[in-house]
Amino acid sequence: MTYSAPDQTTTTGPRTGLLPDLTDPVAVTQALIRHASVSPDPGPAQQTLAAMLEALGFTIISLPFGEGAERTPNLFARLGTAGPHICFAGHTDVVPPGAESAWTHPPYAADIADGILFGRGACDMKGGIAAFVSAVARCVQQGGLPGSISLLITGDEEGPATYGTCKVLDWMAEQDQIPDFCVVGEPTNPAAMGDMIKIGRRGSLNAHIVVEGVQGHVAYPHRADNPVHKLLSVLSALREAPLDKGSDWFEPSSLQITSMDVGNTATNLIPAKAEARLNIRFNDLHTGTGLKGWLETICRQHAPTARVTVRISGESFLTAPGAATDHLVQAVQTVTGRTPKLDTGGGTSDARFIANYCPVAEFGLVGASIHKVDEHTTLADLETLTTIYKTFLEGVMA
Amino acid sequence: MTYSAPDQTTTTGPRTGLLPDLTDPVAVTQALIRHASVSPDPGPAQQTLAAMLEALGFTIISLPFGEGAERTPNLFARLGTAGPHICFAGHTDVVPPGAESAWTHPPYAADIADGILFGRGACDMKGGIAAFVSAVARCVQQGGLPGSISLLITGDEEGPATYGTCKVLDWMAEQDQIPDFCVVGEPTNPAAMGDMIKIGRRGSLNAHIVVEGVQGHVAYPHRADNPVHKLLSVLSALREAPLDKGSDWFEPSSLQITSMDVGNTATNLIPAKAEARLNIRFNDLHTGTGLKGWLETICRQHAPTARVTVRISGESFLTAPGAATDHLVQAVQTVTGRTPKLDTGGGTSDARFIANYCPVAEFGLVGASIHKVDEHTTLADLETLTTIYKTFLEGVMA
Repeated sequence: MTYSAPDQTTTTGPRTGLLPDLTDPVAVTQALIRHASVSPDPGPAQQTLAAMLEALGFTIISLPFGEGAERTPNLFARLGTAGPHICFAGHTDVVPPGAESAWTHPPYAADIADGILFGRGACDMKGGIAAFVSAVARCVQQGGLPGSISLLITGDEEGPATYGTCKVLDWMAEQDQIPDFCVVGEPTNPAAMGDMIKIGRRGSLNAHIVVEGVQGHVAYPHRADNPVHKLLSVLSALREAPLDKGSDWFEPSSLQITSMDVGNTATNLIPAKAEARLNIRFNDLHTGTGLKGWLETICRQHAPTARVTVRISGESFLTAPGAATDHLVQAVQTVTGRTPKLDTGGGTSDARFIANYCPVAEFGLVGASIHKVDEHTTLADLETLTTIYKTFLEGVMA
Repeated sequence: MTYSAPDQTTTTGPRTGLLPDLTDPVAVTQALIRHASVSPDPGPAQQTLAAMLEALGFTIISLPFGEGAERTPNLFARLGTAGPHICFAGHTDVVPPGAESAWTHPPYAADIADGILFGRGACDMKGGIAAFVSAVARCVQQGGLPGSISLLITGDEEGPATYGTCKVLDWMAEQDQIPDFCVVGEPTNPAAMGDMIKIGRRGSLNAHIVVEGVQGHVAYPHRADNPVHKLLSVLSALREAPLDKGSDWFEPSSLQITSMDVGNTATNLIPAKAEARLNIRFNDLHTGTGLKGWLETICRQHAPTARVTVRISGESFLTAPGAATDHLVQAVQTVTGRTPKLDTGGGTSDARFIANYCPVAEFGLVGASIHKVDEHTTLADLETLTTIYKTFLEGVMA
């Protein structure tokens, strides 16, 4: 199986030295953590992963996008061509460790103590990738699967994500490589394995409102035009009624005013300008464009001269529960004995890009320590996740 | 007549050289302007005035208050002891000239061109003092008045006013020198002589409201406590209904929010603190203390943890029209042929201190050029004001 991709190379032969036992998610996690790969991943962590996948029989396509400082390593790997095609999406980049001296164990040592594996990326999300690699390795060891498997791995999920997952998806669409279903390995469980599968995410929109008025003395307000009062009317109107009451799978949308700024220190002066910033996390009852229009209408009503700048970071998306998601739920139930909550809360992830192409769900490790000092996972959780991924693959392809 | 006043001196003999013709308000104004006396007046302008008053037969009490850099020259002068006792209050200090090169005529030259007298203090309010001095000089020339006259002159009205008029009033009360009526010589006419007498002023109050919340990620507002929303509720409640609809002699009170500040530049962060500043100009339906209580109640209702700091700059006051004010109105009518508006608008003046002791009204020159480059008055206005003051004194003492 070959793919044509200008500027991309199909590699052959392992790129790193001795590989760990690929059926052991702990050893695989350690191998990945030991390549420091603060966002954007400079490459070696992803090359190590590529070598592992190649050893399992995957065809690897290296897909760097962006130029100079923005150059982002990405890879697409596929094993088999039969349907169904199940994709695992993830990232090899990690957030910075902060003060390394604050860590109990060095952030890139992947030390194990009392059944806990410490390191930057342990749960977000080198551990998640490792569990999937080991699940596939165990399936391969047992004679393979009837369908085909791919991995979509980016080196920039924690950064601007401009040259990461979305560019790989464009390429996948061009190459007719869009899967039937995608699992994103983000650490979705708040406290324990089996807590939560994410089947959608809210959209996010940032707005900046600037109201200009006419400066003047507070004793003569009729000669001035107080922009603070107009901004206050706009913000009160925006907060007057909730955006919605939630939908089948979503909590109510949330509007948070994050800043209001005038900077006037003179007590006797009506200022010339007032501004505010806000963020809306919105569910599937809204679109970014619809909310932009709503913001502009409220401003027109209460402060006709206001300038509104809106940036839509992501639209909301939902993969309504169905066949593939049901298999994921069932795998979690079988392995953990618990029924995961199907959730759409929290921040954004690369699943927002994938949802434009195919059904997607997110499930991984426990996320309590992500982005913190002493990020860690447990050996037991890594084994549990490996078993869940394997059970899911077997179930969805049966 | 002697007054006992520790640290104060009763002076004898003129303190400056040749005095101008005291019946000529133009010459007196020029003599006063030529002593630069940016607030607080360093003294010579006031000493010149003292010399003029002494020449007219006044007893002069020098009343400096404050220590070091805060030392403020003030004077109290009285002519006669009979009733009624009419006081003229004013200030010899002026605001800084700004860039002297921007002036058409040097700010302390008191140049006259085409019937216009230019200089810092021309109308605010060395010209007003001069008109009163000349009015008295003309009365003295004609054989005096049946009652007695005093002048309360401070060297710090344009600055903090801490060691000025209010301290002199304390001393006057101790010495049983409180007059029956006081005229403040501030430039009350917006455009032409006869426009306006001020019979009261609104009070002024500044408030600073600080709301502390709990910082957090915008995607998880339930884990945070957004202080911006609480502050917004407080400010909306404060603006919800007008404070009043005005009273017999006052416009409605006015609340102006002058600043709202958070300073949060992170779009994904709910901030920990939000603050606002506001000013209330209030009429005689309110007191500063009453409004402070109202602000505190609104904060308790909408943001229980808010901290409110209130500074009352001045209470509102009103000298309801009556005998003495009627004489002032009549003098204006007689001299200008116009009926002055009895007004209570605009900023604050030292009249707010005087109102605590006796009825007070304000009338002076045209104020259009005060605090500006090329401050000026006309020779005609100086003569008109002199005639009005003289007519008033004769009327009120008749």
